[in-house]
This record gives sequence, C-alpha cells and structure tokens, in this order.
Amino acid sequence: MTAYRSPWMTEELDMLSVAARRFFQEEIAVHQERFNTQGYVDREVWNKAGEMGLLCASIPEVYGGGGGDFSHEAVLNIEMTRALASFGLGVHSGIVAHYILAYGSEEQKQRWLPRMASGELVAAIAMSEPGAGSDLKSIKTRAVRVEDHYVINGAKTFITNGYHANLICVVAKTDPDPTAGSRGVSLIMVETDNQPGFRRGRILDKIGQKGQDTTELSFDDVRAPVTHLLGGEEGRGFYQLMQQLPQERLIIALSAQASMHKAIELTVEYVQNRLVFGKPLADMQNTRFKLAECKTEATIATRFVDQCMMQLLKGELDSTTAAMAKWWTTQKNCEIIDECLQLHGGYGYILEYPIARMYVNARVSKIYGGSNEIMKELVARSIL
Amino acid sequence: MTAYRSPWMTEELDMLSVAARRFFQEEIAVHQERFNTQGYVDREVWNKAGEMGLLCASIPEVYGGGGGDFSHEAVLNIEMTRALASFGLGVHSGIVAHYILAYGSEEQKQRWLPRMASGELVAAIAMSEPGAGSDLKSIKTRAVRVEDHYVINGAKTFITNGYHANLICVVAKTDPDPTAGSRGVSLIMVETDNQPGFRRGRILDKIGQKGQDTTELSFDDVRAPVTHLLGGEEGRGFYQLMQQLPQERLIIALSAQASMHKAIELTVEYVQNRLVFGKPLADMQNTRFKLAECKTEATIATRFVDQCMMQLLKGELDSTTAAMAKWWTTQKNCEIIDECLQLHGGYGYILEYPIARMYVNARVSKIYGGSNEIMKELVARSIL
Amino acid sequence: MTAYRSPWMTEELDMLSVAARRFFQEEIAVHQERFNTQGYVDREVWNKAGEMGLLCASIPEVYGGGGGDFSHEAVLNIEMTRALASFGLGVHSGIVAHYILAYGSEEQKQRWLPRMASGELVAAIAMSEPGAGSDLKSIKTRAVRVEDHYVINGAKTFITNGYHANLICVVAKTDPDPTAGSRGVSLIMVETDNQPGFRRGRILDKIGQKGQDTTELSFDDVRAPVTHLLGGEEGRGFYQLMQQLPQERLIIALSAQASMHKAIELTVEYVQNRLVFGKPLADMQNTRFKLAECKTEATIATRFVDQCMMQLLKGELDSTTAAMAKWWTTQKNCEIIDECLQLHGGYGYILEYPIARMYVNARVSKIYGGSNEIMKELVARSIL
Amino acid sequence: MTAYRSPWMTEELDMLSVAARRFFQEEIAVHQERFNTQGYVDREVWNKAGEMGLLCASIPEVYGGGGGDFSHEAVLNIEMTRALASFGLGVHSGIVAHYILAYGSEEQKQRWLPRMASGELVAAIAMSEPGAGSDLKSIKTRAVRVEDHYVINGAKTFITNGYHANLICVVAKTDPDPTAGSRGVSLIMVETDNQPGFRRGRILDKIGQKGQDTTELSFDDVRAPVTHLLGGEEGRGFYQLMQQLPQERLIIALSAQASMHKAIELTVEYVQNRLVFGKPLADMQNTRFKLAECKTEATIATRFVDQCMMQLLKGELDSTTAAMAKWWTTQKNCEIIDECLQLHGGYGYILEYPIARMYVNARVSKIYGGSNEIMKELVARSIL
Repeated sequence: MTAYRSPWMTEELDMLSVAARRFFQEEIAVHQERFNTQGYVDREVWNKAGEMGLLCASIPEVYGGGGGDFSHEAVLNIEMTRALASFGLGVHSGIVAHYILAYGSEEQKQRWLPRMASGELVAAIAMSEPGAGSDLKSIKTRAVRVEDHYVINGAKTFITNGYHANLICVVAKTDPDPTAGSRGVSLIMVETDNQPGFRRGRILDKIGQKGQDTTELSFDDVRAPVTHLLGGEEGRGFYQLMQQLPQERLIIALSAQASMHKAIELTVEYVQNRLVFGKPLADMQNTRFKLAECKTEATIATRFVDQCMMQLLKGELDSTTAAMAKWWTTQKNCEIIDECLQLHGGYGYILEYPIARMYVNARVSKIYGGSNEIMKELVARSIL
Repeated sequence: MTAYRSPWMTEELDMLSVAARRFFQEEIAVHQERFNTQGYVDREVWNKAGEMGLLCASIPEVYGGGGGDFSHEAVLNIEMTRALASFGLGVHSGIVAHYILAYGSEEQKQRWLPRMASGELVAAIAMSEPGAGSDLKSIKTRAVRVEDHYVINGAKTFITNGYHANLICVVAKTDPDPTAGSRGVSLIMVETDNQPGFRRGRILDKIGQKGQDTTELSFDDVRAPVTHLLGGEEGRGFYQLMQQLPQERLIIALSAQASMHKAIELTVEYVQNRLVFGKPLADMQNTRFKLAECKTEATIATRFVDQCMMQLLKGELDSTTAAMAKWWTTQKNCEIIDECLQLHGGYGYILEYPIARMYVNARVSKIYGGSNEIMKELVARSIL
Repeated sequence: MTAYRSPWMTEELDMLSVAARRFFQEEIAVHQERFNTQGYVDREVWNKAGEMGLLCASIPEVYGGGGGDFSHEAVLNIEMTRALASFGLGVHSGIVAHYILAYGSEEQKQRWLPRMASGELVAAIAMSEPGAGSDLKSIKTRAVRVEDHYVINGAKTFITNGYHANLICVVAKTDPDPTAGSRGVSLIMVETDNQPGFRRGRILDKIGQKGQDTTELSFDDVRAPVTHLLGGEEGRGFYQLMQQLPQERLIIALSAQASMHKAIELTVEYVQNRLVFGKPLADMQNTRFKLAECKTEATIATRFVDQCMMQLLKGELDSTTAAMAKWWTTQKNCEIIDECLQLHGGYGYILEYPIARMYVNARVSKIYGGSNEIMKELVARSIL
Repeated sequence: MTAYRSPWMTEELDMLSVAARRFFQEEIAVHQERFNTQGYVDREVWNKAGEMGLLCASIPEVYGGGGGDFSHEAVLNIEMTRALASFGLGVHSGIVAHYILAYGSEEQKQRWLPRMASGELVAAIAMSEPGAGSDLKSIKTRAVRVEDHYVINGAKTFITNGYHANLICVVAKTDPDPTAGSRGVSLIMVETDNQPGFRRGRILDKIGQKGQDTTELSFDDVRAPVTHLLGGEEGRGFYQLMQQLPQERLIIALSAQASMHKAIELTVEYVQNRLVFGKPLADMQNTRFKLAECKTEATIATRFVDQCMMQLLKGELDSTTAAMAKWWTTQKNCEIIDECLQLHGGYGYILEYPIARMYVNARVSKIYGGSNEIMKELVARSIL
C-alpha cells in the first residue's frame, strides 16, 4: 500500500508533531500512572505546554497564540491520542479559545488569550448539567443581571479541566421565559479565582481518561462583570455553540482515527511476536481477517476525516458532515480497539498494556461532544 | 449538507451521464422484465450501445473507442447501477478491452477493439472453473500449442456475457508443470464464431442480475492462432490479471456506492409518504437513525471511492486500497439495501419495487471480482 | 455434541414428519421450478395434502381434522421449510382454521373445517391493505350490515393463498366511528365462489417464495351472510387477532430455526468437499469460525423456540415471548443464510443451489407476521 | 410476560440466594472501592465466607462442604455478579475444589477440602504462562521428581486469587519429551506456606475486577510431595482439565446472563426517570428498540444456560454446548452492557454508576475460561 499523507499536512506541522510527541511522552505519558491516581495532571504541565507553544497554537500571534490554524490543533490532538496522554488541551485551545476568538471583543481577547496561551489560565466550558444532557433549552443555571454584573447560580457536571480551570465559559440562562427557548441562553466567561461562591466538586472517577480532571462545578451567587458576556448581546449562546460544533466534533473524529491506527499498530506488533500452537498469531486467518477489517475502516476513516479537515480549513465544513464524522469514527474506534484487545488475549485486560488503556479511554467518545444518538438525528434532518 | 461533487467529474462526463442515463432507461430498464425472463438483453442492445458511444468509452479513438479514460467507465457503471439495468458493459469495456489495450500487440488492438466499440463483438473473460474459484494455480483449462495454434480444452463457469460473447479472453494453462505455478497461466483471445468445439451451457438462473447472461462455457479442441496470445509470451497471465485487478475492483466499488445512494433516495421518498399510526414513517426515530446510519456510510464510501478514483487516474491506485474499497463498499451496500428494504415493509419484498430488485442484484457483489474474503487476505498481507 | 431432540416431539410426530417430508418433496419440491414460474402450486396439491391428512392436522377429528395439537402444525412447517417448499399451509391450517375453531359457532365449524381439511376449500386471511401495514385502526375495508348480510368494500394486499383461496377471513371495519378504535374491527368469513364483486389482482412477483401465491384482492359490494361473522358479535376482531398472534408468530420462529439448521447442513457439506488452495474450505479458520457462530445461534434458537412451544402447548405462551422468538429467529436466520451463501462462493448466487433459494425465501420473514420493528415495540412495552 | 423461574431452582437455593446476596453486599460491595484500590479483598472475607457456608457449597458435607451440587455454585456466582462483587470464589469452589473432589485420593480430599471450606486455605489454579495461552502443550513449567518430591520451576500469569492463595493447583510438565504432547502434563497441588522458592508477582492492574487479586507467580525449586499429584498417575493433567471445562465454562455463562439482566434493570430504571427534550428517555423509539433487543437476547441466554445447567446436573453437558454457552453469553453480555451504558449518557462513563463498573468488569469474560476464539474452534470441530 502506497504511503498516505494527509493532504493538509505541511513541513511546519511535521515539526509541530515531533515537538508535541516529545512533550506528551515526557511530560504526561511517563507520569500517567501518578496523574491517573491523583485524577489530574500536575498544574505545571499547563505552564510547560504554554512554554512549548502547544497552547492556543491556532490563535493569532497578536494574542499570544501560535499563529496557526485548525490544522495545528489537529496535529496536537492526534499526537496526544497516539501518546495515550490524557490532557484537556482540546477543550482549552480548540474550544474555549476559539469561542473567545470568534465572539469576544478586542478587550476580551487581550484579557484572556495571552494568559491561556502561556498556561497561566486553564480554561473549561461548563455546559452539561445534572439532569440535562444535550438539550440546551432545559438548562437551569441562571445568570441574572444585577447592575454591571451577572450573578450566576447553578450546577454543572462532566466539566473537563474542572479541577484546574480558572477561566470558565459558562452556558447560562439569561432569559428564563420558556418562550425564549434557545434565545434565552448566553455564554459568560467566569474568572474563578477569589470567587467564594464557586465550588469544585470532587473529581469524578471515570472508566478511563483518569489523568484528565473531570468534575462537577457549583455556582452560588458567583459574579461576572457584564463585560464578560461573549458576543456583545444576550441570547446568542445557542447560536454560538452551534457555530463552533463542527470543528469541535472534527477534533474528536481526528483523535478517533488516530486512535484506530495506533491500536492496529500495537496489535500488528503483538500478533507477529506471539506464538500460538507453534506459529505466530499473525498467521491465523481469524487474526488476519479481523485486522484487515480494522485496517480498512481505519483507512477509510482517515480519508474521510482528512476531507472534512480540508473543508474546515476552507470554511466549508457543514454540521451534518461533522456529525457523520463524529459518530462514525468514535463508533468504529471503539469496535476496532475491542477487536485489537481481544487479539491480545489476557494481556489485553491488563492496564500495563497500551491497548487496555486505549479501551478505557475510548469509550467516552461515543458520548461526549454530542452523543452519537444526537449525531444521527442531525444527519437524519439533512435527508428527512 | 453542502452539495458534493466527485472531484474527478467534468462537464464532459456530465453529458456522458445524461446520455447513459437515457440509454439505460430506454433500452434496458423498460425491457428489464422481458430481459430477465429470457436471461439476456436483446443482442441489438450491444449494437445500440456501440452506436451511442457507450462501448469502449475509455479506449483511444484510434481504436474506435471514445477516447476517454477510466472516469468514463466509472460514469457508465454508476448510471447503469442507478437505472437498475443489468448489462455486461463492465466486463466488455472495463475489463476485456483494457487487457487488449494494455497487453495486446498493435495488430491485436486493431483486430478487436474497433469491433468491440461498435458492438459487433461482445467480449467476455473466462476465468472461473467448476471447482476452482479465486485460485489461479488450480486452473485446469489447457492450451496446448500445436504448430501455429493453441488447442484449448476445459470448462469455465460464471461467465458474464456468456450467451452473447463472441470474443473470449480465456485464462488457460500453457505450462502444466506443477512447479510452473502462476507462471504456467496465459491469456488467449478466442473468437468463438465457427468454432465447433465451443459450447455455451445454459444460462445460469441467478438470484438477481437476471437480464445479464451468465453461463458455463466448454472448450473441446477449440483452436486459437498463436497470435491471439496476449502479451507476446506465454506465462504472463497471472501478472496481467494482477495488474488489471485494482481498476476492475474499483469499478465494483463505484457501482456499490452509487447503489447505496439510490437505495437511500428510494427509501427517503417512501418513508416520507408512508403513514404509520397516523404519522409519516419518516418521523419514527428508528427510521431516522437507520437512514442516518445508511447515509453516513454511503457518504463515507463515496468519498473514499472518489479518492481511489483520483489515485487510479494518476496511475497510483495500489491493490491493497482497491481491495479495501471493493470489500467494504459491497458489504455496506448489501447492509444498506437490507435496511432500506426493511423500511419498505411488505412492499420491499415485491419485485415491482426497485428496492427489491436492488436487493437481489446486489448480493453477488460480495462474491465476484474476488470474494470479500480474498480482499481481506490481500489487506492483511499489507500489514502482517 | 450429544444429540438433541425437541422435548415436544413424539413417536407419532416422527411418523408425521416422515410423511410430510415425502409429500413436500414429491408433490412440491420436484415441481418447484414450474410452480415458481406460474406463481402458485397446482390446485390439486391442496387436495392431495388433504388426502394425506396434512391439512388441519391440529383440528379435532370431529371437524375432519387430524385430531392433533399445535405440535402437528409445527412438524409440518418445519418439514416444509427443510424441503424448501413454498406452500400456504401455515395460513390455511395454522391461522384460518384456528380462528374458526376458537371463535366460530358450531355451525361455522361444521360448515368450513371439514372442507378445509379435505382441500376443497383453500383459506386465506385478508388483513393488510395498500397504505396500512400493522396498524389495524387505519383499516379502510368496510363491512356494512344490510339486512341479513354484510356488504363488503375495500382492497387488500399481500394475501397469501390469494390466487387459490375460496374462503377468506376478511378483517373489516364494522364501526367506522373513529372513536371506536380497535373495537370497530370484525372478522368476517367470505366464501368467494360466485361472488361477482370479488376480484383477485395479479399474483405479486416476489423476491422469493415464488410458488406460493400472494395477491391483491378487491371487494366491490361482496356479500357475506351475517352468520359468517366470527365470534358472535361485532367489534371483536382486534381482540381475536391479538389472541392468535403468539401461535402464528411461533410458527414463523419454528420455521426460521429449522431453516438455520438446513442452511448449516448444506454448507457443512459444501465446505467439506470444496477445495481452495489445495485444501478443503472447511479447514480455513474463517470458515470454521463463521460456521461455529451460525451453529451456536441455530442451537440457541432451537432451544428457545422449543421452550416457547412447550409453553404454547400448556396454554402459557405470552405475546412478549412470542414476539422475541419471532424477531430474533427471523433476523438470525437471514444472517446465517447470508453467511452460508457467502461460503458457497459463486454457487451461492445460482438458484440451482438450495442455499440461494433459501436466501430469497427467507427475507420476507423479517417483515410478515408483524414486522420485526413491531415485535421490538411489543417487547419494549413489557419492560418500559 | 409471564414470570420465569429457572427450572433448577429450589426453595433451598432461594434461601442460599438471599444469604449470598446479603454477604456480597455487606462484606464486599460496600468495601469495593477500598478493595479495588488495594487490589484484593481483605483476607478475612474468605473466612467470613467460610463461616457463612458460601465456600465449597457444592462439596459433600463429609469434606466440610455444603453438601450441595453445582446449582449451589451457580446461585453464588449469579448473586456475586448481581452485587457487582469481585471475589475469586468461582476458582476456589467451582474449579479447584472440584479437581480435588474428582481426582483426589481420599487422603487428599481430607487434607484440603475442609480447610478450603472454612476459608483457611484459599485456592488458585496456575495454568497460563507468559507466552503461552490456551495451548497446554507449550507449557514450560517443569515438575521434576526427586525422590519423594516434585521440584517445580516456572512462571505463571493471570492467576486469580494469586495474592491470597496458599493452595495452588499447578499445571506442570512432568514429561518434557516433545512426543509426550498432552500426556506430558500433570496437576500438582502446591501448599505455598513456607516455600522459600515461591514468589508472588505484583498484583496486575486490570481494566476491571480490580478487587479480585490477579498476579503472576514464580516457582523456583518449589517442592511438593509426590502424594500431592492429582489423579494417582502422571500425565493425566490434560484429560483432567478437559473433563472439568464444561462446568467451569457454564459458571461463566451463568454469570454473564445474570449480568445482562442486571444491566437491563439498571437501564430501565434510568431511562424511565431521565427526561430528554421534555419527555422520559424511555419514550424514545431508539431507547425502546435497543432495550427490547437487549431484553430478548438476555431472555434467550437465560433459557439456554438454564438448559445447559439441567444437562450438567444430569451429567450430560457436553463440551461443545458449554463452549457455545460460554462464547455467546459473554459476547452478548459485553454488547448489552455497552448499549445500556450508552443509554446512560455521560453518567455511563462515571464509575459511581453501576453500569460503568459492569462495563469494565465484563470485558475479561470474552478472554478467560478459554478465549471465545477457542470456543468457536471447539464448536467448529463438532460439525466439521
């Protein structure tokens, strides 16, 4: 099979790949067991990532970013996946920084982006609530304007970076009138330092991704200046979220396809060395067919995601195509990892083996970023 | 979802599409029931196809062809699939003509290609034998050189165009020595008119594709001049077959992805009009999710096959990638048609409905052109 | 594996098996190609079946039946499936005769059952309508009482035995008031001989089951005496249908599991004799694993269906369990046949091979008798 | 759906169920988080289990056991599964005690079984080796007879109860001659206390089942009296293992089917309470169909496994049927848990939720007890 190179890769991105690979290996992967036990990476990992230029790589240099585009975030997420490193960079740089860049005022960009790029600020987005999943209209967190501040009350859950974050993009109801529907939702940036009413719940004990802090958050009369509203007017939150979703979902798809290839590489190596009944496991027809099926779907996934990436870079990625990429690649990634794990036999169940860690890490991807059921509904709307 | 256009399509190909669509509709689809009953299209369909310029579209004009490239064959096969027309054009133009073009001498090209382009000759390739499937080394048909002729003896089966063909590319053993292996096989062009030892078996009654004649053939001291050997020397057959396989398999994949979209279109229309329990079937979540899954995989298939096509047009399509495309698209096409048929309820089982005809037509695609099991072995070899 | 015998089998049933096997082989299977072409079995097949005691085997002897119970119908359907014989015995004996037995007056039983047992009458049930599938409330066929007759108008489709039937159990609206809902539906027995307003549509050309006549029927002022109403009072149709459904669905499940084993037997024989690359196809690990999966699910299906049968014979089969048996066995049967067909290679696509005929015959089973989607909804209701 | 009761259940077993449920809940489940962290249950859990009569329940009272039969082990494993309790009782009572009972001399039974029943001895079986999975012939651990002792050298891995076990049934080569094949393997009971050459490796960090200690073991000139050989003569190990496998595999299948129902119960409760877009998740058709599919397969699994249990109790369970039960139920259990987890949305990924713990616990079952690939090969041998 002739070598394949993603059409959006460049020599500059190759160099970024190399740097990122080293960073994720040396600063995260080697400490992963400790990070997993404590439930978060050491705080200075963020600062180191900032020093290395790995935060806000797709944000203009004028705001302290790397001056790259979305392909830079793609490279980082792919390398992070391949290193089996759990780190909330995707949310920080790929999501929150882009909300600020897209909807923030010049003042807002200047206020937050440089410190996000350095790692001084760790960012999170607080959308999900206990009892409300993908349905924005049912959000209960309230932001009430009192003079020049919003006073925020509510509870959020499943917040990536929830332990470290000191800058949180809160999805809140600014208009509680039921008839306001999705127009009642706004995004408000909350700086959490010195906020007595802001509390982090304990770190949630997840199936995998254990080194990446996921928590509940509670807001009890937390205050944010009205100037921290994103987008200049209330009620734009739903629209803003919808606008950014394709690229957030593509990031997930990019990681998923990278994960597939990693799982296959690990397994190819394993089955070539493992002897069963006197010959390599790689010689068994079942092994061959299963890996051929995995390799085919991984290849197809990569080609599809790469085309989505090309569309995104041209500003043409639509939400239907992104939804397709998200659900299909995460579904296939879980299936492929499961097959690869099975080929490892008993070793596949031992976390010392990377395939086992991939198994527990991957499962959430069918749920987050909009569950795969939501994705299918989005695709259905495009044809029915 | 933004409109998608295959990157290899051109305005010229659009015009070919329109012409082909009309031809397949008017000359085949409207007579399909009769053709199905007799087991073959009327002989003059071939001549009409020739007049319309639909035969040998990818063969240089100097040999009577259309002067196009493989994208022309692609367009024809896609339109044929969409018209649900059973017609052996793929074998005639996409396979046999290309063997002659690739390996034939100037004299051979002049002798056969113009008459193939006009429909005077209908071509077939005789590879499979009773008792031997994809394993070329076990081929039993013998071609023995006697002075300036080959004398051919053997039996072939599953021969597309077997009823009409008067020019047959016979895969035969020229060197029976077991140690010769794949070097013992040659391709010999046999003109069947006035060949007393050549017999066509009855037309095989297939699950679908009933209007396309598939037969057994037997060769009993059939004679072909030694000048009808393809490639100038004996023993090149295996190599020649291997060389052409990627594009033959891509043709199957192109048809399969076209079939997926056709099935989805038919079903979208059906479920939007069909009421169940007082509301459109299209409103049921099961309908929506199933069609979303079908649409996603059809979309991914198209993008992948289109990339393969771009590789082919640049001469870079490798056999592993073609094998991936062949097995995956035919597998998914059968799955998608099955889901779509199910959404039609009882009507899905009635051949009057196109989805039912698609169901019976599609099944063979997982078997022919190299069974999907063979494809998986080919993919496995690329990684193990 | 130790031999397994269905716990409901008896020596008497063994003898019935043998007789049925011979009948289906000699009277139907050997003529199947002709029956398929004409779209129905010869009319005298029904009379011969009657003479052989194969009609109404589960109806008391006092009404001309065989005096057996439902296990007799089971044996007949299993043997019919194994013989690949398309014949509407299931509807005639297993469904219509049981409606008459369960709900008919003594006079009705005397009038129809003996002639059904002899084959003088061929019975059908007319439920589905163009535009209405499983939703009884949307039935449009009207039966209006005019003095001592019902005058029936409407159209029915997908009627098994529609070409031969001269006794039809018509599902009709007797109360058109929308608030009547399912209480507006009644079952009326219609004798079709000498009924000028009764017309049979052409025989529907189906994917498979071609020798079993399936037609549309139309009723234009067709008259039935009020004494032909089943159950003594109007509005009981929905209830009557619901009551009989578990055993009708179990018949389908019984056939499906028999079909699985037949497909596996055919394929085991094929792969043991077929050589690929110099050794039996049965030695390939893919063949072994696929057949092991098929055999496992066939075995599990048989055990489950047999337990359902034991429940039925004790009068304890509930509709949820029957729905489980129906959808799961028909789904698995189609999957197993598809795998087995694939292992036959090109021969699997040729109707001369039984596996190919099984493939086209089986597909309808996921749709009829209540589509598998309806079955899943029934199961869901039992837990949600 | 009418209530179903396993045909092998008795009132005595009902009482055992209740006691076991309380034990697993109070002694294990409430401490599970701590046990998971340390990687093993507290040692006294074994003694408490002994006091409660939960160890060796299927061993005759004369040897200190409960005097029950295999149905008692079944009940215990089912309750353990439903309590999500990780505890190596299956290996201790269901496997090792039965090897001793089946092959041990009277003296051996007296020596070990009473102390196993009290929990004084914790038993393990040491079969797998690094580099050798299911292939007994490739076992490298050597037992060399030196006077009246065996001197054992080798390394084992994936040993359940490896941290606590002080009585280990070691699978060792007693005849290293390659031509001895499976006749070269013996089972030798090793008492590990005061054995300087016996070393336990660290506890393996597994995907799930974290509270159940799984370790590597190494044997360096470990000595066992020749009287500790099981079965009276060398070379019987392979035969002994083969004999016991059906019941060991049935235990796994029993747990798997219990797990399916537990997962469905948890999910039914969740979807009935969870609102999405203003209505219960239980009202969505996708939820309904997925749970219906899960419920159907869980029901079918239970009925099949119960029949296997009836066969086992009559001494008629063959290895093919047990292999079917093992692979199919563990495969389906993993699929069902995955679907159920998905219906939980984000909560499904949080270990606080039982469905998440079930997910990580279940995965090993497709691998241990003979991998599902081995099971398929066993089934294949019965038909090919």
